[in-house]
Amino acid sequence: MGYTKPSQKQPPKDLPSSWTKEKLVNLVRSNGLSLSDQKLSGLSRFIGTLNSNDSISHEALLKALKKTSTDSQLAVNLLTGKVVIPSFVEFKKDFKEIFNQTKKIQGGRVADYIPQLQRFSSDAFAASICTVDGQQLHLGDSDQHFCVQSSCKPINYGLVLEEHGNQVVHRHVGHEPSGTMFNELSLNDQAIPHNPMINSGAIMCCSLIRPHLSMADRFDYVMETWQALSGNQKVNFNNAVYLSERQSSDRNFALAYFMREKGAFPAGVNIKSVLEFYFQCCSIETTAPQMSVIAATLANSGTCPLTDQVIFGPGTIKDTLSLMYSCGMYNFSGEFAFKIGLPAKSGVSGVIMIVVPGIMGICLWSPPLDSTGNSFKGLHFIRKLVDVYNIHTYDSIVSGNQHKKDILS
Amino acid sequence: MGYTKPSQKQPPKDLPSSWTKEKLVNLVRSNGLSLSDQKLSGLSRFIGTLNSNDSISHEALLKALKKTSTDSQLAVNLLTGKVVIPSFVEFKKDFKEIFNQTKKIQGGRVADYIPQLQRFSSDAFAASICTVDGQQLHLGDSDQHFCVQSSCKPINYGLVLEEHGNQVVHRHVGHEPSGTMFNELSLNDQAIPHNPMINSGAIMCCSLIRPHLSMADRFDYVMETWQALSGNQKVNFNNAVYLSERQSSDRNFALAYFMREKGAFPAGVNIKSVLEFYFQCCSIETTAPQMSVIAATLANSGTCPLTDQVIFGPGTIKDTLSLMYSCGMYNFSGEFAFKIGLPAKSGVSGVIMIVVPGIMGICLWSPPLDSTGNSFKGLHFIRKLVDVYNIHTYDSIVSGNQHKKDILS
Amino acid sequence: MGYTKPSQKQPPKDLPSSWTKEKLVNLVRSNGLSLSDQKLSGLSRFIGTLNSNDSISHEALLKALKKTSTDSQLAVNLLTGKVVIPSFVEFKKDFKEIFNQTKKIQGGRVADYIPQLQRFSSDAFAASICTVDGQQLHLGDSDQHFCVQSSCKPINYGLVLEEHGNQVVHRHVGHEPSGTMFNELSLNDQAIPHNPMINSGAIMCCSLIRPHLSMADRFDYVMETWQALSGNQKVNFNNAVYLSERQSSDRNFALAYFMREKGAFPAGVNIKSVLEFYFQCCSIETTAPQMSVIAATLANSGTCPLTDQVIFGPGTIKDTLSLMYSCGMYNFSGEFAFKIGLPAKSGVSGVIMIVVPGIMGICLWSPPLDSTGNSFKGLHFIRKLVDVYNIHTYDSIVSGNQHKKDILS
Amino acid sequence: MGYTKPSQKQPPKDLPSSWTKEKLVNLVRSNGLSLSDQKLSGLSRFIGTLNSNDSISHEALLKALKKTSTDSQLAVNLLTGKVVIPSFVEFKKDFKEIFNQTKKIQGGRVADYIPQLQRFSSDAFAASICTVDGQQLHLGDSDQHFCVQSSCKPINYGLVLEEHGNQVVHRHVGHEPSGTMFNELSLNDQAIPHNPMINSGAIMCCSLIRPHLSMADRFDYVMETWQALSGNQKVNFNNAVYLSERQSSDRNFALAYFMREKGAFPAGVNIKSVLEFYFQCCSIETTAPQMSVIAATLANSGTCPLTDQVIFGPGTIKDTLSLMYSCGMYNFSGEFAFKIGLPAKSGVSGVIMIVVPGIMGICLWSPPLDSTGNSFKGLHFIRKLVDVYNIHTYDSIVSGNQHKKDILS
Repeated sequence: MGYTKPSQKQPPKDLPSSWTKEKLVNLVRSNGLSLSDQKLSGLSRFIGTLNSNDSISHEALLKALKKTSTDSQLAVNLLTGKVVIPSFVEFKKDFKEIFNQTKKIQGGRVADYIPQLQRFSSDAFAASICTVDGQQLHLGDSDQHFCVQSSCKPINYGLVLEEHGNQVVHRHVGHEPSGTMFNELSLNDQAIPHNPMINSGAIMCCSLIRPHLSMADRFDYVMETWQALSGNQKVNFNNAVYLSERQSSDRNFALAYFMREKGAFPAGVNIKSVLEFYFQCCSIETTAPQMSVIAATLANSGTCPLTDQVIFGPGTIKDTLSLMYSCGMYNFSGEFAFKIGLPAKSGVSGVIMIVVPGIMGICLWSPPLDSTGNSFKGLHFIRKLVDVYNIHTYDSIVSGNQHKKDILS
Repeated sequence: MGYTKPSQKQPPKDLPSSWTKEKLVNLVRSNGLSLSDQKLSGLSRFIGTLNSNDSISHEALLKALKKTSTDSQLAVNLLTGKVVIPSFVEFKKDFKEIFNQTKKIQGGRVADYIPQLQRFSSDAFAASICTVDGQQLHLGDSDQHFCVQSSCKPINYGLVLEEHGNQVVHRHVGHEPSGTMFNELSLNDQAIPHNPMINSGAIMCCSLIRPHLSMADRFDYVMETWQALSGNQKVNFNNAVYLSERQSSDRNFALAYFMREKGAFPAGVNIKSVLEFYFQCCSIETTAPQMSVIAATLANSGTCPLTDQVIFGPGTIKDTLSLMYSCGMYNFSGEFAFKIGLPAKSGVSGVIMIVVPGIMGICLWSPPLDSTGNSFKGLHFIRKLVDVYNIHTYDSIVSGNQHKKDILS
Repeated sequence: MGYTKPSQKQPPKDLPSSWTKEKLVNLVRSNGLSLSDQKLSGLSRFIGTLNSNDSISHEALLKALKKTSTDSQLAVNLLTGKVVIPSFVEFKKDFKEIFNQTKKIQGGRVADYIPQLQRFSSDAFAASICTVDGQQLHLGDSDQHFCVQSSCKPINYGLVLEEHGNQVVHRHVGHEPSGTMFNELSLNDQAIPHNPMINSGAIMCCSLIRPHLSMADRFDYVMETWQALSGNQKVNFNNAVYLSERQSSDRNFALAYFMREKGAFPAGVNIKSVLEFYFQCCSIETTAPQMSVIAATLANSGTCPLTDQVIFGPGTIKDTLSLMYSCGMYNFSGEFAFKIGLPAKSGVSGVIMIVVPGIMGICLWSPPLDSTGNSFKGLHFIRKLVDVYNIHTYDSIVSGNQHKKDILS
Repeated sequence: MGYTKPSQKQPPKDLPSSWTKEKLVNLVRSNGLSLSDQKLSGLSRFIGTLNSNDSISHEALLKALKKTSTDSQLAVNLLTGKVVIPSFVEFKKDFKEIFNQTKKIQGGRVADYIPQLQRFSSDAFAASICTVDGQQLHLGDSDQHFCVQSSCKPINYGLVLEEHGNQVVHRHVGHEPSGTMFNELSLNDQAIPHNPMINSGAIMCCSLIRPHLSMADRFDYVMETWQALSGNQKVNFNNAVYLSERQSSDRNFALAYFMREKGAFPAGVNIKSVLEFYFQCCSIETTAPQMSVIAATLANSGTCPLTDQVIFGPGTIKDTLSLMYSCGMYNFSGEFAFKIGLPAKSGVSGVIMIVVPGIMGICLWSPPLDSTGNSFKGLHFIRKLVDVYNIHTYDSIVSGNQHKKDILS
């Protein structure tokens, strides 16, 4: 379902009536896709059968592709202008412009509570998207690795929802914003953390991830999830960051002891192990392109758009996006929800993972943070993007806002 | 745009291939519409030309209606199964069942801080909906009048957004939840009220409504807005409630003086006048059917579905729904957002106005309140409805939740 | 009783074995007394009988004075070195030195929330003491009048204790510090003001002062008390300050409405009248010498040392000093209690009234305030005085602190 | 010095003009003293020289004792009615009456967070005093040992004041009440604990006690101090309590990590060691008589009245009593200061140590605690004692309260 009348997507007028190998390759590329994409294997095979001079009519091509059954749906959509961002070329142009403009601005400060974070260049900047159809666009420092830090929180929350169900999980962690001025050491009035997107709640989630396995197996399980979420790409682990985090962990130890004293944890929890597990999750390393695929998996109701693998169910995604929307951006969450209106989670490494449900995942990464602990360039970029495209949650459910471009048409 | 693939709405299979007067009248009624509806005037006129024995084929009927141009779009949609809730009969059955079940439960306490509220029967219960196509359904005590109380807050917020624009308004009132345990007398860190849905913020909005007019003209302007929002139905004013509210206004006077001391008000505000204006807005009286139309106007991006009159622009609706979503249900707002996931506003008279964006407005009214100050029966009803239909905001943006009925199909 | 062994006060060695008129006049003056003092009338009359050449032995003089019965006790004490500060000459020297040193320092800012306060010179400075034997010392701007402001709070608290008794009063106002970081609009957990030394508590006390009289009679009663406390000296009223205070009273109106909403007031209170009464009490005008006598009356268990009139009973003084000790210096109260260790009350006019129980009252006045709202010079002065003399409450109850001078010897 | 006129202590009228051995022994005993007291050795020796039939005149006896120089001052005071509580027989009668009355009342609950505390009988009750002259009175379960728990806090605070001085210590811990509703995990606005009488402040003090010594030597040093304070009586250590405390230490670990994160500790602190040290201090075991001597040492400016050994200097005692007065009774501190008006410290074992400066130390012990965590019977007892005797701090500095007995006469 959707809140609005179906937009009638006509096949783009500039589609040729007949196709050559070159035209097909260009079509794929200009839509942010690649012939090596798993979901274009049917088209790829077909192109492999063409000679460079061959020409085939639009209708014949569609017919041929439909024959190859399951693995050609994306190709058919592409040829009929039905991918999620049909005007990808224009979108790419807008995205680049905002990227170049944002790259120039200065502001914020690189986090320095551990030396490993401090060493990042304050000029580093990457912006990536991946749509629910697998259309991708990556600008800037796409090959740089950074730690996921707090952006591990929604993933761990998703894992425990899948494992225990909503009811059990929320006996140990709340589902509401904590209020911007709340003492960071407080719990809610049921004596549990306010939500899974703050440190106390994230530690709580860690305590719930496969508690009966060995620490090694628990961590393996988390890593496998990250890999599946990012389309079976390898994610790394930054051991130096982990060791540093463990060194500067007084706050988190305080939180954990406080929660155990209040009986918030499940029985039998070992604080040291849980915290080490939490620091390990924070020290997982990805790139902006990988994070955009992970965000796209969330945008796609838990199914990875590159592999069609189901990692999380729709119920898990519903709860996760709901709490990313209200609590994902530290003290800036309320203003972010009002002005940007998208589920997101930021991390102290300068990463912001943003979900445009049903459409795409976005990853912005730039180390300098503003006073709310969110990436300075990242916030600037997403503000500009929301100015141009109608992707704010309440843009989409309110029709008729004519000042913005419709991303779906 | 919408986050999901367009749902293919086939004309209901049970539509006859030829129509009689009786069949047409039945079609209208079973879809929650009436031949006296302004937007069905074309169809109504056509039916007036039919004799009771006449029969006309589906195609001929559609052709005839399309000729009558502008005022037949709704009729055409109706005949092709394209109204927003196409399975209205089934929906009505589900709605009634939930209503009857809810009617039996007991709980909550009628507000008693003023005698006028206390006199309401604790058995009174009404549930109404109006869709963005004007489909209506009203159960229970539909003709009882009650005061709007706090449900005037989003309307007043909408008025000042239209008058001054988002930027000016939010210099005087914030846009974030206040945190559930916050002292009710506190302001946010810019020394303004946390949001327009709490008393201090609502008083602030009152101070911004046409401040240069006389109090009489300001109140007229608000009343006219309420009438337009409800499709040009008359709304009443309960003077006894107003006088009682004014009697028991210490808290609100405290809030107003506190805000003036902090410089939160615009220059030149007269506290007594503003508070009397606020109490008057709270003492406006409507019925559940009227409130459902008002909510439907919000659901329909600010255009009344019964009259097509534009009362608020989409930008105003976007901001209003956004804050109803995060702050509209007192201390229960966080949990309501997580579990029900819809913009709503409740009042101490037992009213809850709920907006299902793009689909419908809902009004639930039952005087006994639970400990969070929200209607006990009202909350029970909406919980059940969200269990059955996929109308939670994050239901709609997450596809594939197969346990719920799709309200749009 | 006293916590320490009686100090053996020997008649000062420098007392002559025979007296002349001149020697007696000098003795009186050098001890901070005057022959016009009511309590030296016996001595004064005796001196009136002497010729300038007359000489009388010490023993004969004592004998003669004792004959004149009741009104010569102070004279006898003076001649036997038993006044409360026996080494008054040395004390005067130390006091002047601290005064001159303090006069030079710069710091703080004159309060400017009403223009009448702002007009005071930031150089104005007065320091006065009066002992329980009526010994006085006045330095600096002794003839300048200033408003008592918050220093009316302990006096009003004393009045209601006398009128209603401890039990009734503390149903309406608490008796504990409020905690330095507490929101100024909060009440304690019984929903009453934390103590009588903060605004809300002072407003509460005003509501309890002879509530059945007319406002005029209530204010007369307060003025008469101030005059009695200061030894029947006339106190003034600054109407301009009163009118200004009433103008800038939003905070206090907020407090009063908040308290009425919580049911903190006695029944039937009229907020506007009570606040006007409170502002009037704050606008009473005195001088530093007068205030030192008032403080001396508190130090002397409620009996004015100049007139022997009993204004407050010992029980009232006990409670009043107890709360001045813990709550009298705004947010600085905790540190003042720890470091200075004396009951005190400051006001925004730059006044600090300090009680050294059983010994003397001190008034320090200098308009510039530090960030805690207390007189900058006033705090500096009293710190220095406590460095030199053992007048800290816990100096006196701890024996053997040899680094300080004993004020009683 | 003292705030009041010296009370003229006449030798009790009932003193005989001549003494026998028996009369002297009776005099000693009826004043709460014993001939084995170190400070009565002179008298004891003299009595040893008497035969049971010998009679000696008052004057001759005084003369004889004065010859024996230093060790007869207490005996002389005794014979001239100059001990601190001269009417000890009457005081003993009153004290017993209050004890017997208090013994009967029921209320409170024995602490049960560790099993070792829970095992105490809820009927156990002991009340002991020791004056600054060594007069003692012990009622009830005087031989039962209990852990000092939080009553170790003022002792440890005293130790670090002696070691580092006031200035250094208060860089790490504040000197003000924390406010009754403050979150127990908060620090003051300098990010240090509010005062040394709450857990966080006590842990801080532990970190400052001879930090360069081994843990064993640090604990020895504390134990030696306790023994000296109690007149060289052996104090015990309850290892079972220590082990239990260590088991249930989550709150204290949370506090310690929180403080380390905020940089509150001195450099190089090891959290585990400091907490173990703190738990050990809490597990020291004494009896009510011993605790009354310790309190008497504080009352006597830091010099043990039984041994004349100086353990703390007057400056240390001044600061310690000041903070016991304002912060020693948990959330009841404010009310205790107002109503009882004495420096005190309570512990979860049911102990209350009370200091009447210059006069005596009191220990009350009874395991059931009221809702503020203070001994139910202990509070009842001290309330009654303060009703009868003028020992409230502001009793003593206000003269003329005729409804109470003067303990010094």
